[in-house]
Amino acid sequence: MNYQSIIEKLEQKINTFPKTGKVADYIPELKKVNPEKFGLHLSCIDGTDFSFGDSEEAFSIQSISKVYTLALAKEIIGDDLWKRVGVEPSGNPYNSLTQLENENGIPRNPFINAGSIVVADCLLSVLENPKADLLKFVRKISNDQRIEYDQSVAESEIATGSRNIALIYYMKSLGNIHNNPEEVLDFYFYQCALSMTCRQLATSFKIFTNDGKLADTDEQVFDKQSVKRINSIMQTCGFYDEAGEFSYRVGLPGKSGVGGGIVALHPRHYSVAVWSPRLNEKGNSSLGMKALEELTSLTGLSIF
Amino acid sequence: MNYQSIIEKLEQKINTFPKTGKVADYIPELKKVNPEKFGLHLSCIDGTDFSFGDSEEAFSIQSISKVYTLALAKEIIGDDLWKRVGVEPSGNPYNSLTQLENENGIPRNPFINAGSIVVADCLLSVLENPKADLLKFVRKISNDQRIEYDQSVAESEIATGSRNIALIYYMKSLGNIHNNPEEVLDFYFYQCALSMTCRQLATSFKIFTNDGKLADTDEQVFDKQSVKRINSIMQTCGFYDEAGEFSYRVGLPGKSGVGGGIVALHPRHYSVAVWSPRLNEKGNSSLGMKALEELTSLTGLSIF
Amino acid sequence: MNYQSIIEKLEQKINTFPKTGKVADYIPELKKVNPEKFGLHLSCIDGTDFSFGDSEEAFSIQSISKVYTLALAKEIIGDDLWKRVGVEPSGNPYNSLTQLENENGIPRNPFINAGSIVVADCLLSVLENPKADLLKFVRKISNDQRIEYDQSVAESEIATGSRNIALIYYMKSLGNIHNNPEEVLDFYFYQCALSMTCRQLATSFKIFTNDGKLADTDEQVFDKQSVKRINSIMQTCGFYDEAGEFSYRVGLPGKSGVGGGIVALHPRHYSVAVWSPRLNEKGNSSLGMKALEELTSLTGLSIF
Amino acid sequence: MNYQSIIEKLEQKINTFPKTGKVADYIPELKKVNPEKFGLHLSCIDGTDFSFGDSEEAFSIQSISKVYTLALAKEIIGDDLWKRVGVEPSGNPYNSLTQLENENGIPRNPFINAGSIVVADCLLSVLENPKADLLKFVRKISNDQRIEYDQSVAESEIATGSRNIALIYYMKSLGNIHNNPEEVLDFYFYQCALSMTCRQLATSFKIFTNDGKLADTDEQVFDKQSVKRINSIMQTCGFYDEAGEFSYRVGLPGKSGVGGGIVALHPRHYSVAVWSPRLNEKGNSSLGMKALEELTSLTGLSIF
Repeated sequence: MNYQSIIEKLEQKINTFPKTGKVADYIPELKKVNPEKFGLHLSCIDGTDFSFGDSEEAFSIQSISKVYTLALAKEIIGDDLWKRVGVEPSGNPYNSLTQLENENGIPRNPFINAGSIVVADCLLSVLENPKADLLKFVRKISNDQRIEYDQSVAESEIATGSRNIALIYYMKSLGNIHNNPEEVLDFYFYQCALSMTCRQLATSFKIFTNDGKLADTDEQVFDKQSVKRINSIMQTCGFYDEAGEFSYRVGLPGKSGVGGGIVALHPRHYSVAVWSPRLNEKGNSSLGMKALEELTSLTGLSIF
Repeated sequence: MNYQSIIEKLEQKINTFPKTGKVADYIPELKKVNPEKFGLHLSCIDGTDFSFGDSEEAFSIQSISKVYTLALAKEIIGDDLWKRVGVEPSGNPYNSLTQLENENGIPRNPFINAGSIVVADCLLSVLENPKADLLKFVRKISNDQRIEYDQSVAESEIATGSRNIALIYYMKSLGNIHNNPEEVLDFYFYQCALSMTCRQLATSFKIFTNDGKLADTDEQVFDKQSVKRINSIMQTCGFYDEAGEFSYRVGLPGKSGVGGGIVALHPRHYSVAVWSPRLNEKGNSSLGMKALEELTSLTGLSIF
Repeated sequence: MNYQSIIEKLEQKINTFPKTGKVADYIPELKKVNPEKFGLHLSCIDGTDFSFGDSEEAFSIQSISKVYTLALAKEIIGDDLWKRVGVEPSGNPYNSLTQLENENGIPRNPFINAGSIVVADCLLSVLENPKADLLKFVRKISNDQRIEYDQSVAESEIATGSRNIALIYYMKSLGNIHNNPEEVLDFYFYQCALSMTCRQLATSFKIFTNDGKLADTDEQVFDKQSVKRINSIMQTCGFYDEAGEFSYRVGLPGKSGVGGGIVALHPRHYSVAVWSPRLNEKGNSSLGMKALEELTSLTGLSIF
Repeated sequence: MNYQSIIEKLEQKINTFPKTGKVADYIPELKKVNPEKFGLHLSCIDGTDFSFGDSEEAFSIQSISKVYTLALAKEIIGDDLWKRVGVEPSGNPYNSLTQLENENGIPRNPFINAGSIVVADCLLSVLENPKADLLKFVRKISNDQRIEYDQSVAESEIATGSRNIALIYYMKSLGNIHNNPEEVLDFYFYQCALSMTCRQLATSFKIFTNDGKLADTDEQVFDKQSVKRINSIMQTCGFYDEAGEFSYRVGLPGKSGVGGGIVALHPRHYSVAVWSPRLNEKGNSSLGMKALEELTSLTGLSIF
């Protein structure tokens, strides 16, 4: 596969795509981003890398962080995790409370807000220094020590997080939150406020293309079976109530964030991160989805 | 991959699994089946085949037929099909009416009953002899002219199909049924009453492992992109509200039916059909799911 | 109470109210009505009557008929009726299927379509000639032998009744319909197609103001306790998802129909029928509600 | 009406009723109450009073307090109140979040928790010393200066109020809470922790039987129209998702609390308070409902 030529074609094509959608405005900090930004970084399992645009500029990864915390929690806690959160697509918007009401406070999956808050609660029970430990872990699999939390974003989320406060207290009332809700949310908001570049994101997700091993050292960080399963959850639940649409159009497991980032991966081939801050009405990067659809068309490859 | 040895191990293991679940009883004809039946047929893209148990005994394929009608409708109608049915997981049981109410009669996906009834309605508008044309098509891709509808099953469904009558009239009231509801249901019930063996099922699904081409003649029956997309819908929606669980445990696209059959496929590798009539509480073959989970563990391969 | 002067004031005031809302258009026959029609008839328990406008013109009473069938069914079947239909407000539109799904096919109350269809099914099991018997009963309590079903309306409903077909088959699938669905719906559509004047409606509802006795003959047609309870159901459920609003503004039990009619009653004082075909967005007569609100303001009386 | 003899018969009958249901246990303080307690106080508009049992023992009035705050808020704010809370029955349990999600954070009515929290928020915006002002008001209409908040109950609620925290932050996220959520909840929990006897409750509700006037001084505390409308809301929404059942069986407007109290009233006749701590599964006093049903049977009177 001549990725270089594909990426060049893709870059040309991106410029012809219409720019639609709106930058996330639910927290003040996210609104400040330049809507015209676009970056892409593709990282092949053989060690080659391709990129263009603003691929070295850090942005708020938001919900993409849910993959990191899920992977950590699954590794530490094992299958007991599934007693507290499911693996089914929710069929509802990412911050819905309705399903919780009918399902005893067990969120449908770890990629809706409620589910990721439960995962954060689980990690709080087992990590010594949750924020530091998570950062260390992300730096390790990204192979980049410069990654930081964006404090202003985290504080902006805390200040405007009524919906998430509602979610956590609701689950607490149903017995599915074990730690202090404010501490859990603090950790959760910091995780969402990780600031990363397309390169760092693509690099970190190579572990999911590589059966759980770090590409450069061959260290087996995650169990192979676990990785397969996390990829599966990305496939079915990674894009809120647009998971089916992404799977249909792109055909790869992936995860989006309201900061405009999307990471996707073709197991045993490559991981790819795109960034374009304009979101469609489902909260996914409009141009990001289009770029990934185009990428799998150009490569002629998908998991299907 | 030494499939022969894997299949042998699998057969041994199957016998040690506990037998749980109940045979479908919502129509009298399905209740008559022997719950102890078990068959498996694996059909590799290279032309080799492996099987054991009751793999040559025909059973009612039920909802597995929804893949055939979807593939036909997508091929004939193209992307206009998606104006009338979605591609998102429903997060609800297969025969739910609730979501329709909030979504203007557009079913979430073509694998819930409402969605497949809409697909049947679409086919009724374009096929000359819907039942004969469908049968001809299934015989062709299964490479077996002996396949038939089971009339007693079809009539049993018609006689007891109140829920599906409710679904179709509800969608008609919302403008999403164009033909006579009774004729649509007649076609729909016949499609569900297709009687096939594991061998026939696995053979027919090779077309989805093979980018839309018939394995023996290389005839391109379906567009390559369409096949990729139908596989994606199987991945996210093929198992009612247990789609995530199947994807998580097995990691392959597939489709189940309440007759106890499941077909799954590894694109560009193999298709596999299992049959065990005992269903779990979500309506999927209990032992069938277990067998496929074991199969992907033994092969060490999945799309993820 | 000087009703004559109150009615005169009301007539003057009505003419100053803005005319808003739309005539029901879900069946062709209802669309034909002149939207400017307005009639009112008030019938006091002491035998005096007051009216103005088109109070002697017959119109389609539609859902108002649900009170007649409920009263008949309660009288014949007694409290066993409540095993098949509830008495709680639904909080949902009149033709919703959602609640049925969660509540085993037991409709919330007898005044939503699903509930009234169950009542019709109950009557079909106990009446010898359902249509004739109902008509005879309505003529008796209205003291007017001229009342008829409007066949063209009934047939128009049958031809366009997809939603109600969906409702009845859905309940049948859940075991709450005992007779042939088509026969039940035929009876139900005929009941809705009763054609009556404001005078006839107000007269027939005197039985509910008079503890179950016919005003002129003192015949005890309904049990006193039953009447009290039917009035209570009108209070809490008589206006679809606007029952609270009507109760709040008017303060009397009543029942509306999409033909634009409303009947209300002040127990032991009077019954009153209004007719104005323009409906608000909840399906209740816009001017009819306003007129009744004005009436209770002018009399200074309500049950509260 | 010989109330004395009716009350005596009622007392005898009460002792023969089976004792079913469970004392509320969602906060520790409520669990401590003796389940065998029973008190009743009936207060006629003519000034006569009748009582028996533990009618002079104070208990936690809980949701009955929602009538006080609604009446206060309606008096001060007027019809603008209805921009922030509806008057429709909810058809859902008292602490449900589901409806809020579909209706932009506007609670269905002021007697579900969400609705009463909005009312509390409204009062916080207009009262100088909310807790002191409310207490003063309740003492005045109860004609008893001894009424107090039960601090241990209030603190118990605050400590265990996760569901209500979820509700308020959810509404805040939708823009329907204007003050600091913690202050609103503090006020709300104190209002629920009012400790009153059956005598005090019945006396305070005389104002709703008397068109808004204090019985002894004839002071017009509430607008007559407002009282009529608050009574109407009690009729349609006073008993959570059992409002229809209470209306059907008792036929009077009323309000219950999980402390086991119920107040009901017959406008222009009497108000009545009962107390029995065992609750049915809907959260209403089981014996209390039965006693009131019996009372209206014995008097032969209801608003219907």
